Amino acid sequence: MKTKYADLTHIMSPKSVAIIGASDNPDKIGHVIMQNYIDEGYEGKIYPVNLNSTGQILGHKAYKRVRDIKEPIDLAVIAIPAEAVPAVIDECGKAKVKGAVVVSGGFAEVGNAKLEEKLAETANKYSMPVIGPNCLGVMDPRTRIDTLFLPTYKIDKPKIGGVSFASQSGAVGSSVLDMINNEGFGLARFISYGNAAVVDEVDILNYLSDDNDTRVVVFYIEGVKRGREFIEVAKKATMKKPVVIIKGGVTEAGATAAHSHTAALAGSHEAYEAVFRQYGFTTAKDIRDLLNFAKIFETQPLTTGNRVAIITNGGGTGVLATDALYQHELRLAELSKDTEKRLRKEMPQIVNIRLPLDLVGDADDKRYSDALSALEVDPNVDAFMVIALFQTPGADSRVASTLIQYGTQMKKPLVVVSMGGSYTKAHKSMMESAGVPVYDSPGDAAASLSALINYSRYRKGM
Amino acid sequence: MKTKYADLTHIMSPKSVAIIGASDNPDKIGHVIMQNYIDEGYEGKIYPVNLNSTGQILGHKAYKRVRDIKEPIDLAVIAIPAEAVPAVIDECGKAKVKGAVVVSGGFAEVGNAKLEEKLAETANKYSMPVIGPNCLGVMDPRTRIDTLFLPTYKIDKPKIGGVSFASQSGAVGSSVLDMINNEGFGLARFISYGNAAVVDEVDILNYLSDDNDTRVVVFYIEGVKRGREFIEVAKKATMKKPVVIIKGGVTEAGATAAHSHTAALAGSHEAYEAVFRQYGFTTAKDIRDLLNFAKIFETQPLTTGNRVAIITNGGGTGVLATDALYQHELRLAELSKDTEKRLRKEMPQIVNIRLPLDLVGDADDKRYSDALSALEVDPNVDAFMVIALFQTPGADSRVASTLIQYGTQMKKPLVVVSMGGSYTKAHKSMMESAGVPVYDSPGDAAASLSALINYSRYRKGM
Repeated sequence: MKTKYADLTHIMSPKSVAIIGASDNPDKIGHVIMQNYIDEGYEGKIYPVNLNSTGQILGHKAYKRVRDIKEPIDLAVIAIPAEAVPAVIDECGKAKVKGAVVVSGGFAEVGNAKLEEKLAETANKYSMPVIGPNCLGVMDPRTRIDTLFLPTYKIDKPKIGGVSFASQSGAVGSSVLDMINNEGFGLARFISYGNAAVVDEVDILNYLSDDNDTRVVVFYIEGVKRGREFIEVAKKATMKKPVVIIKGGVTEAGATAAHSHTAALAGSHEAYEAVFRQYGFTTAKDIRDLLNFAKIFETQPLTTGNRVAIITNGGGTGVLATDALYQHELRLAELSKDTEKRLRKEMPQIVNIRLPLDLVGDADDKRYSDALSALEVDPNVDAFMVIALFQTPGADSRVASTLIQYGTQMKKPLVVVSMGGSYTKAHKSMMESAGVPVYDSPGDAAASLSALINYSRYRKGM
Repeated sequence: MKTKYADLTHIMSPKSVAIIGASDNPDKIGHVIMQNYIDEGYEGKIYPVNLNSTGQILGHKAYKRVRDIKEPIDLAVIAIPAEAVPAVIDECGKAKVKGAVVVSGGFAEVGNAKLEEKLAETANKYSMPVIGPNCLGVMDPRTRIDTLFLPTYKIDKPKIGGVSFASQSGAVGSSVLDMINNEGFGLARFISYGNAAVVDEVDILNYLSDDNDTRVVVFYIEGVKRGREFIEVAKKATMKKPVVIIKGGVTEAGATAAHSHTAALAGSHEAYEAVFRQYGFTTAKDIRDLLNFAKIFETQPLTTGNRVAIITNGGGTGVLATDALYQHELRLAELSKDTEKRLRKEMPQIVNIRLPLDLVGDADDKRYSDALSALEVDPNVDAFMVIALFQTPGADSRVASTLIQYGTQMKKPLVVVSMGGSYTKAHKSMMESAGVPVYDSPGDAAASLSALINYSRYRKGM
């Protein structure tokens, strides 16, 4: 039975791709896209299509038209002047192409609303899902599809992971994509969907909520056209996995800017906020939030309790972390008598047995491990914020290993705060590669724990 | 005439240093400190002092006691067990040592209030300024004094600059110190002052406000003991230069943690907030704010106007930046007719002549330069937020050079937002080395511009 939302399977995992506008001329977008497919090692079939083709393009047999290919085409990537797009969509429809990505600009965003309607009508005639126009398209590090036409040396390749990122804006999309590797999480799917003439945020949210590779959905939107359908899909999606959303145009001036940018109807901020809250979205107020939340959701277990144990090797940082908890609706846990007794036995005398637990400046891996092992089983502790300052004599890669062990095997969420320069960043990177979220400041860590707990409560109907 | 606040000149710029507790044993703190002096290339005289000395320590003639040195000593760095400290301070006083840093712990922070009082009384008897105890001490990249006893390979060396950082907490101090290089500002003086038994935040603020190398003061405090004097010094300091302050213990739980950490009386958060606001401090709510604010204050000119021009090469990022302005009490500038006319002539047709000014994805250095040159002279524009996304085809080191040119020569403040991975970070680093603050998110940039404008208004009595 046909779902009422667009099926993006053939776009995200195509067995064959026609690149319409492919070219041997490196200045053409169609060239960059085709070269990317080849460079990424895409394993499906590639068919370059160009009206002026002469035999071969980038070493592949070229076709003048889609209909000449005579083989089944899952995905058409269209990079040709705007005016020619609707006719090519029609050809694709006739050739039973299963989906298309239109990267070309020159539609509603520059006042050409009519041309965009034509594009949409044509696609809908064939029930063909089309992403775009005016977008970067899609990237999937697993299937190695990549329709982006940006210089590859300018973007760090994201590692494979569980976070899918969909963005109305190509600029926000590509800069976040470029930050993923450094931000310690991995990518499942990337979708830059631009003007959303056919496939819109509703279809994408629906697809990602059913997608097994996607553990966390992250969205940049400027507006939603199908409000009722959006809510229907949101209800399902947020009960399955966390959906982090950042909306451009939450102020009046921002909304005006958004309108002139993608001609999106931004709608009232309050209405969006209400919907996001009611249906369990996690709202990011800035790109920083978005990255911070993505990484805690990708790796850490849910918990509805907000009693946090802070463990630190620096007193002042423990103070700031305590402040940060209360500024984000969290609280310090109170240790059970058993835990106190155990810690008193195991910790050196200089360690004051109370939270924040200051392991003091010479803390090594054993002291962190002893503390975590005692607190892990304390029923009064719901979550951990562990501060590991690597400037201190005792902190080294063994401390990082200990935090990896607890941060990946415990049933309670754990975040690390490590602030510093290159030595610290090396250890941050170790921990993040292994699946432990590390933050640059106690405030970022507290905001992320708070997001996790709020979402957990939504899931439990609290 | 003697000032009523401690004179730190001889501590920060000593011609000779006695290192009490110096040792050939690399496990001793006194060894690490002395080795650091040698490694840093300190140009003054170094006198190792150790009761058990045998001839030489680290290649320098050793002395059993300070009084044996027979040469004038500007600074004594004391790294010996707590109990022995007051007697050594007394010896230093008798030997007319001009200042001391006590790095040893084991005083009020572990309940030994009496010993700390003894230390203070002895120092005061000789009117000798003493920093500490329980601190990392001081670092000055110009005079190359460095009493820190942390492994040097764990801390990135800060570059020389105009920001002085004083921290009650050694942990907060050392992690911020380690971040300076990567955060794009330079260090004037670093003072970790611990329990503040003798020299306290009042003396330090007074010293830094008079110090010509210090253009910006940044402070981490947990409490102020001399309230009236603090206000008196603050009045003077904030009229001379920006003072960014972060206070640990702003929540009740945080204040309790602070008390157990340095035995500081945290006092009511509201009272502190009121004083900070009234006397023109810039309050940082997190370490991230602190770093963000330091770099805009170090390099950018003051302005009391809040009409900001956003220039971008990505539409969605321009939308988020516009939102961020209004969320931080700033507003979008409105272009004058002259500017509009000029831009219409100079910009390609695809560029919509309005703010945020979207130069679109193929913007190169010339387009940025044309836009900035037109907007620089527009009387309706007070400040700039320039978004440069280096993932785009047109953005390269020439764009960075253009932003350096405007960001360092204009009379209006300019901040850059560049989000991305390694290619972006390379350009961020270029711009920051040249004195242009670059932020990872529009929210950080807006918060920093807002801090600059609020401080400028305080200076003008607005």
